[in-house]
Amino acid sequence: MEKWDVVVIGGGVGGCTAAMYAVRYGMKAAIVEMLLPGGQIATATTVENYPGFPEGIEGPELARRVHEQALAFGVEVISAEATEIAAGPEGKWLVKTSNGDIETVAAIIATGAYPRSLQVPGEKELRGHGVSYCATCDGFFYRGQTVAVAGGGNAAAEEALYLAHIAEKVYVIHRRDELRADKYLQKRLFEAKNIEILWNSVVAAIEGDGEVERLQLRNTQTEELSYIEVQGIFVAIGYIAKTEWLAELLELTDGFIVTDRLMRTNQAGIMACGDIRNTPLRQIATAVGDAAIAAFSAHKYVSEWRAERQPGQ
Amino acid sequence: MEKWDVVVIGGGVGGCTAAMYAVRYGMKAAIVEMLLPGGQIATATTVENYPGFPEGIEGPELARRVHEQALAFGVEVISAEATEIAAGPEGKWLVKTSNGDIETVAAIIATGAYPRSLQVPGEKELRGHGVSYCATCDGFFYRGQTVAVAGGGNAAAEEALYLAHIAEKVYVIHRRDELRADKYLQKRLFEAKNIEILWNSVVAAIEGDGEVERLQLRNTQTEELSYIEVQGIFVAIGYIAKTEWLAELLELTDGFIVTDRLMRTNQAGIMACGDIRNTPLRQIATAVGDAAIAAFSAHKYVSEWRAERQPGQ
Repeated sequence: MEKWDVVVIGGGVGGCTAAMYAVRYGMKAAIVEMLLPGGQIATATTVENYPGFPEGIEGPELARRVHEQALAFGVEVISAEATEIAAGPEGKWLVKTSNGDIETVAAIIATGAYPRSLQVPGEKELRGHGVSYCATCDGFFYRGQTVAVAGGGNAAAEEALYLAHIAEKVYVIHRRDELRADKYLQKRLFEAKNIEILWNSVVAAIEGDGEVERLQLRNTQTEELSYIEVQGIFVAIGYIAKTEWLAELLELTDGFIVTDRLMRTNQAGIMACGDIRNTPLRQIATAVGDAAIAAFSAHKYVSEWRAERQPGQ
Repeated sequence: MEKWDVVVIGGGVGGCTAAMYAVRYGMKAAIVEMLLPGGQIATATTVENYPGFPEGIEGPELARRVHEQALAFGVEVISAEATEIAAGPEGKWLVKTSNGDIETVAAIIATGAYPRSLQVPGEKELRGHGVSYCATCDGFFYRGQTVAVAGGGNAAAEEALYLAHIAEKVYVIHRRDELRADKYLQKRLFEAKNIEILWNSVVAAIEGDGEVERLQLRNTQTEELSYIEVQGIFVAIGYIAKTEWLAELLELTDGFIVTDRLMRTNQAGIMACGDIRNTPLRQIATAVGDAAIAAFSAHKYVSEWRAERQPGQ
């Protein structure tokens, strides 16, 4: 069994950055990645707000570049699905995978998070053609048009207010008769002239010929169906992180891994970074920042582990 | 007097990123920059560890790109030196500058930090030709050579241990007879076969014909002078942030601005990000992550301010 100083779980931009920094700190580092490297961003369209690319960069191209950079530094990639992290020999960790166990002193979890989807007809088919999960990313395409936001929390309110600057009309579709968003956001929503809140409503279907043209709504109290015409629908009903497999080991909050400012979890030697942790903001810029700090903390941990257990090395 | 939602002080990569995100959040944002945009990185040589550039990128080129990106988003640049931040009308802030006062709801401070220099003959002249302030950045150039690290704290110890993997021989030059570095780092330093600590010593001069060839050392107890031959000298005696002008307004620690995880200072509406704050790591990757979060917090603050003071807007 090959032995590592640090194993990074997840090969997205955050994971590749953490592994690259780990090698740069003089550690032997591998990435465990289930699918192709790249992570969520590999499916994104143009990324406009990652600093360094004034003309924007395609998501898959950015993912490819960061992966190539990690390989150039000497990071190794193990194609496997991590299924458990357990205590190993000598105070190390065992990362159990679909392709055997991996022994490592430290681990960094960087498997990201995904926007929760509505799970309605048309959503998958029209994704990227009027169905979006990020107003800050895609809002500019809807200048002067009519759009809808699904959701009632802070994220939905923020998206709606943001879109109100750009679109001509913004519907907010919310399943209950009051919002969960903070009061000051609610106040601004209510006061905005071009925002209309459709209470007690959910999206039943997204329809259109190759691009979004209308939404079928269902009233949650009367079950009545109705239609609104929109060119875009922004889904803002939260993020999901795949953390069930870690729930017994790590402290979670709302399904996200709790870390301190050094990206350390409640288990010594296990760090988490990027969208999977309890971060205030899920952006590529924040993922790379987190990742560098996670590697820094892993290096400190591995150095201490070595000083305690392997005198003379 | 022009009025802004958010004014970012400092036009380096962090400042430009914060301003770009601020505009992206729908705010009217300006950067106040004393010199040319770019910040510290504009003087760096090749940057290898910023994710997205597998072949590395020249510091000034990265600075130029991020600045261009901010301008493309609609950020305005004000050429002036910020000299004071004071309470303004309606709960706003007044940023006083060499070019007049600027009224803003929120401010983000991103003026960075600089490695402390030795202030000895030859240091300035041979910077980039054997004199370095970052082993992680420049260490690879010294494979198989002899180098020195000046300093006795954690940073110096980390730099020396890192260089010990690459260089043939590493001197650590420390002015006292014991190190300030953590015990586990000291242990590893003492055990490394190719690290030699020169106690009670300071660098008196850096000498060489176009590149570093030798150091003149002075013994702090006997005042005796001596020479060692090295190809590189890494200065690791800490960072300096220019925060005197903020000392009465903001909470500082060791001269750096104290922030919470949302990059908020102790003054509502004033954020700080990047190297100038009490961050565990000073890297471009961490600066851009901080910057995005600072803009996020500024947006929240400006939204609340507006909801309270300007009903209907």
